[in-house]
Amino acid sequence: MVRWEPGATDRLRVAALDLYLQRGYEQTTVGEIAKSVGLTERTFFRHFADKREVLFDGEEQLQQAFVDAVAAAPPDSTPLGLIATALTETAEYFGKDRRTWSRKRHQVISANQPLKERELLKMASLATAVADALRRRGVADPTAALAAQTGVTVFAVAFEQWIADGETRSLAAVERDILREFRILIDALETAEP
Amino acid sequence: MVRWEPGATDRLRVAALDLYLQRGYEQTTVGEIAKSVGLTERTFFRHFADKREVLFDGEEQLQQAFVDAVAAAPPDSTPLGLIATALTETAEYFGKDRRTWSRKRHQVISANQPLKERELLKMASLATAVADALRRRGVADPTAALAAQTGVTVFAVAFEQWIADGETRSLAAVERDILREFRILIDALETAEP
Repeated sequence: MVRWEPGATDRLRVAALDLYLQRGYEQTTVGEIAKSVGLTERTFFRHFADKREVLFDGEEQLQQAFVDAVAAAPPDSTPLGLIATALTETAEYFGKDRRTWSRKRHQVISANQPLKERELLKMASLATAVADALRRRGVADPTAALAAQTGVTVFAVAFEQWIADGETRSLAAVERDILREFRILIDALETAEP
Repeated sequence: MVRWEPGATDRLRVAALDLYLQRGYEQTTVGEIAKSVGLTERTFFRHFADKREVLFDGEEQLQQAFVDAVAAAPPDSTPLGLIATALTETAEYFGKDRRTWSRKRHQVISANQPLKERELLKMASLATAVADALRRRGVADPTAALAAQTGVTVFAVAFEQWIADGETRSLAAVERDILREFRILIDALETAEP
C-alpha cells in the first residue's frame, strides 16, 4: 500500500544533507537517510532516484527557468539584455531561506571530486540550454554561445559569492555587481590591446 | 628487451583516431590500434595510459602554456590583457597542420557522451588553472575568476569555429574576432540595463 507522507521530500532532503556533512557523502547510505526521519528506503526511492539526486534535483527547474526567462523577455532586448533578465528572474529562486541549504550543499560537493564534476557539467549543460534559447530568439552564433556562457559565468561566480561566509546581499544584487565588474574588465581590454 | 620506435607516438595517435572514426570509439581496442601500425599492445601502453589518453594527452601542455603566458606577460597588463596575451601565445600550438587532426578529434568526441563530458571538464580545469595564475599575479576575485572564465569561453568558442568546415583563418585571428564580439556584447548591456 502506498502512503502519502506530507513534506517527506523536504524531510529527506534536510536529513540527507546533514548526514552527508556529518559522515561524508560516500559513507552515507539511502537506508540511513530514510531511517533518520522514520521512513523506509522504498519511500526514499519514491522521492529521489538515488542519493546524488538529493543534491541535484533542482537542476531541471533552474534550467527551465533560465530558458523561460530568455523566451519571455521583451522583443527589443539585446542578447546580453536577455541574459540580464534571465539572471534577475532566476535569482528569485534563491531566497534568504535557501542560503543555508546552498552553503551546506556546496560544502558537501566541494569535498567530493565526482560531485564537483557533476556540478561543472550541470553548469555546462545550463550554458547549452541558454544558448539554444537565444538561438530560438534569433541570436546568431558566436554571439549566442558567448552571451549564454557569460550568463552562466556571472551566475556561477555570483552564486559562489552569495554563499560565502558573511555575505548578506541578495543573489540578484551580487549578480548586478558581478556584471558591472565584467564590464570594467572588458572595457580595460581596449587599452590593453595592441 | 625494450626497443625504441621512432615516431611511434604519432603513428599510434593517427591510427587510433582513424579507427575511432571508422569503427567508433567504444568498439576500438588498444590491441587493434597497435596492430594497425605493426606494434604491440605493450608498446601502446608505453606511450599512452589508455585509449582515451590518445585524445587528451595535450591537455597538460595546453594548461601549462596558458599559465606560463599569464605569468610572463608584461607587468602593467590589465587582467584581460593577460588573458589576451595567453590566447595569442597558446594559439601558436594550433597551426594549420593540426586543424585536420583537431577536426577528426572533435568528430570522435561529439559522438560519445563520456568523451564530451571529459572535454567539458578539461575546459573547467583550464579555467581554474588560469584563475590561479591570475591570482598569483595579484588579480583579486571575482575579477580573476571572471577573466579566466572569459578567456576559456573565448578559446572554446573560437576553437569550435576554427575547426568548422571551410574556416581558413588562424586560431589567433578567430580569437581576436571573438574578443571583439565579446566587447560589442558587453557594450550593448549598458543600454539594455534599467
